[in-house]
Amino acid sequence: MTGRRNVPKHLRVKREPQRGAYDRETIDAILDEALVCHLGFEVDGQPYVIPTLHARVGDRLYVHGSAASRMLRHAASEVRVCVTVTLLDGLVLARSVFNHSINYRSVVVLGAATNVEGDAEKTEALKAFTEHIAPGRWDEARAPTAQELKATWILSLPLTEASAKVRSGPPEDDPEDLDFPVWSGVVPVHLAAEPSEYDWRRVRDGRVVAPENL
Amino acid sequence: MTGRRNVPKHLRVKREPQRGAYDRETIDAILDEALVCHLGFEVDGQPYVIPTLHARVGDRLYVHGSAASRMLRHAASEVRVCVTVTLLDGLVLARSVFNHSINYRSVVVLGAATNVEGDAEKTEALKAFTEHIAPGRWDEARAPTAQELKATWILSLPLTEASAKVRSGPPEDDPEDLDFPVWSGVVPVHLAAEPSEYDWRRVRDGRVVAPENL
Repeated sequence: MTGRRNVPKHLRVKREPQRGAYDRETIDAILDEALVCHLGFEVDGQPYVIPTLHARVGDRLYVHGSAASRMLRHAASEVRVCVTVTLLDGLVLARSVFNHSINYRSVVVLGAATNVEGDAEKTEALKAFTEHIAPGRWDEARAPTAQELKATWILSLPLTEASAKVRSGPPEDDPEDLDFPVWSGVVPVHLAAEPSEYDWRRVRDGRVVAPENL
Repeated sequence: MTGRRNVPKHLRVKREPQRGAYDRETIDAILDEALVCHLGFEVDGQPYVIPTLHARVGDRLYVHGSAASRMLRHAASEVRVCVTVTLLDGLVLARSVFNHSINYRSVVVLGAATNVEGDAEKTEALKAFTEHIAPGRWDEARAPTAQELKATWILSLPLTEASAKVRSGPPEDDPEDLDFPVWSGVVPVHLAAEPSEYDWRRVRDGRVVAPENL
């Protein structure tokens, strides 16, 4: 946890604050590894959460907004949103039911999302989405036409209001539970790619890995 | 897609409507397979999306609300929320950038969440969370104390406003792209468990599978 005191209240991790992290290195690594995000927004008093694609370009986060476009079309030019990504790392089986948990790395980005308008920035964002999912693919696949660019709805928000939350390591058994006669430990999980006839560079040894680890 | 015409407008899948499904069998299977959900709610005009645990018990969805409890504590007794779960099934690499996609199964549940108050229902929900993550674990692990029950914050919402969205199958290349000289296909992905000294019954052949397939 770095600089929690300097972090605005609405961004601070409130439950289990020792799991909070606010440095861009931690935040960027999680955003870059996750394949999908969940975009949260509100329409007429009803919150919606929609899975979609994202990609980070420097200090900005681009979010593929087509699934939300019909709902957000009539919103103001800036919409408060929340973009959350979560990576599952393990199932934490403690000796007590209460201490069961999940190992994970998550990032929450809050902000005012703007609609990306210009073709140049739209193209940059589409390239980032493509390279995020399949590094190297942008140069190989057929480039977007003007009409396809027009049909794509992309949100952009700055990474100024972001926080990470990470749980790792073994179960936290209470001292009085240590003799309770049940196995306690972590089952590590990861996103795996199946063997297939693919030409895809985000897989190493059958695992889906972050681009920087390739 | 079943009975879309009978589905209230705010629940209908708007983009790619042919991918929408509204039958409980499809919805329940996705909710039961997913290990985590994303809980969306709004406080003072800011949407928040938080990863947390869920479990379905018949026609109700329980959501572990402790991570959101400090924020929702002062809300009305009923809070409009959105609970979304997403299962990643594959990376869809089309011949054009524009047709790239993800194979996935997702469920969106909208509703008024109520705080579970009674110890009996809290215990039932905790049992459901535990069995959801690790079938058989409830009978083995140390049961919750009265104090632990008190410290647990659980939301409950009915499955009356729910929809699923599913993409599966190969890329949808445009006819004019079929000769474009690049590999096109799907890289299947799944959540995998690593070999470990575990006593955990949701893993079969190294894969994390839905409880009903065990």
